[in-house]
Amino acid sequence: MVDSQLWFSEYHTPHVYKSWKVKRALYSGTSKFQSIDVYETVEYGRMLVLDGYVMTTERDEYVYHEMIAHVPAFIHPCPQRALIIGGGDGGTVRELAKHPGIKEIILCEIDEEVVRVSKEYLPQISSALNSHDDRIRVVHEDGFKYVQQFADHFDVIIVDSTDPVGAGKILFTEEFYGYVYRALTRNGIMTNQAENAFYDLKIMQDIVQRLSVHFPYVKLYNAGIPSYPSGYWSFGLGSKTLNPLQQNGVERFRKSFPTRYYSGDMHPALFCLPRYQQEALDEATAR
Amino acid sequence: MVDSQLWFSEYHTPHVYKSWKVKRALYSGTSKFQSIDVYETVEYGRMLVLDGYVMTTERDEYVYHEMIAHVPAFIHPCPQRALIIGGGDGGTVRELAKHPGIKEIILCEIDEEVVRVSKEYLPQISSALNSHDDRIRVVHEDGFKYVQQFADHFDVIIVDSTDPVGAGKILFTEEFYGYVYRALTRNGIMTNQAENAFYDLKIMQDIVQRLSVHFPYVKLYNAGIPSYPSGYWSFGLGSKTLNPLQQNGVERFRKSFPTRYYSGDMHPALFCLPRYQQEALDEATAR
Repeated sequence: MVDSQLWFSEYHTPHVYKSWKVKRALYSGTSKFQSIDVYETVEYGRMLVLDGYVMTTERDEYVYHEMIAHVPAFIHPCPQRALIIGGGDGGTVRELAKHPGIKEIILCEIDEEVVRVSKEYLPQISSALNSHDDRIRVVHEDGFKYVQQFADHFDVIIVDSTDPVGAGKILFTEEFYGYVYRALTRNGIMTNQAENAFYDLKIMQDIVQRLSVHFPYVKLYNAGIPSYPSGYWSFGLGSKTLNPLQQNGVERFRKSFPTRYYSGDMHPALFCLPRYQQEALDEATAR
Repeated sequence: MVDSQLWFSEYHTPHVYKSWKVKRALYSGTSKFQSIDVYETVEYGRMLVLDGYVMTTERDEYVYHEMIAHVPAFIHPCPQRALIIGGGDGGTVRELAKHPGIKEIILCEIDEEVVRVSKEYLPQISSALNSHDDRIRVVHEDGFKYVQQFADHFDVIIVDSTDPVGAGKILFTEEFYGYVYRALTRNGIMTNQAENAFYDLKIMQDIVQRLSVHFPYVKLYNAGIPSYPSGYWSFGLGSKTLNPLQQNGVERFRKSFPTRYYSGDMHPALFCLPRYQQEALDEATAR
């Protein structure tokens, strides 16, 4: 048999790209919103690609999903209601659903094709969407509009979006963060994917500056995610009253479920950033 | 003018590679030990490549060099004598030379061609080698043999080596770490480049297991280095008496020189690892 030599490449800039050997293309389609591809790669397992950008891979998805979900959920002493905007692959839902106190998880993914394709081709990641967990509800609406109907409702909101280009751009605006703030309960916390400090430091500064218009506590934290550009990804965090450095759910964490990346010990350390990133954060929040 | 479309690619595994657009190849040669190439890349500036592997780039070299040098040098209350094995590009020398108390820095690089090429083509990185700083001495000897002539001499030893294949392999042995231990003063500390936890967890476990044969304190710490495989690189640390979590040089740090990645605030946080890496470390040091 002749090797097909199928490779998927993602350009991080016009002058740098990363390539993965693909065993086979499992799915390729175009929804109302974007192109959707699923590749079976040799090294990273199955990979979800939207508009040509890697969203998640089986091999390292746990890092992203644990870190975007458990950091806010363990700062809060007992989160009961959560909203995820984006995140149609279901990985963030899966992690939040592990918290025993959680009573309601709404996944607001605008593109129902992403959910359908993930349920079919990425069962490891989307497992919670295929379960009969009645705490979980999936809605296919525009997150920017959807969140506006809530006030003082969610303990945790996670913005698990694509990059701030095209349809995803509105999820990085000051106005949107204001609606998120209002939809959160008094002790509510939000996190979002905040690009990477190597290629996108200016975008990251815009994110924290806009978050700080609304939230008294604004933080960044990082995690090593090999499938994303630079390999070291950032998350933004906004908190209304709870100091993010305090892991109020620490006892709950010790008694709860195993993790692979997140740990109680690392929690306060997460917010100690590389100096250039800390200075960029300080500069942006002082504006 | 037609674009040359020259790209340099590094394979992280046979099934994953990263590519950089190259403006021009500045140098290409073969020494007694290895092939040596210097490329002018569009995105990462000049890049040193040994035997086809990226050693350092102008754009992100500061992360690697600050982290391998300042972490041990600020754990020690006042390092005076340091040995660097490998590190022929001079970046680690440059960082150590910033410490005002340092009186002697020996760079033991087996391949004098690496030093010569770095001095000519990577002036930003090799600046300390081109200076007339009489604290710095460069020797071209086999580091494995060279270190054996010392006992109770160096406060800091940094093993800034290539990967544990070919000539570099011997710098990852238990026997070598024993010679390093002996060459260190009573409060001495060593660091080495320890690959990455995503692709090389087993190699990393071997490193910490072999370090722990000799050193009472053995730690790992990570930094985001986009030009290296996975983008999240690890360093090993062995300390004879000083607890690595304590930054004994903190006052010296505040008064000393600016850094871009390392900071006094991040120091203790550095040793809080991702859970799977912490578990791999615990398992290896318990052997």
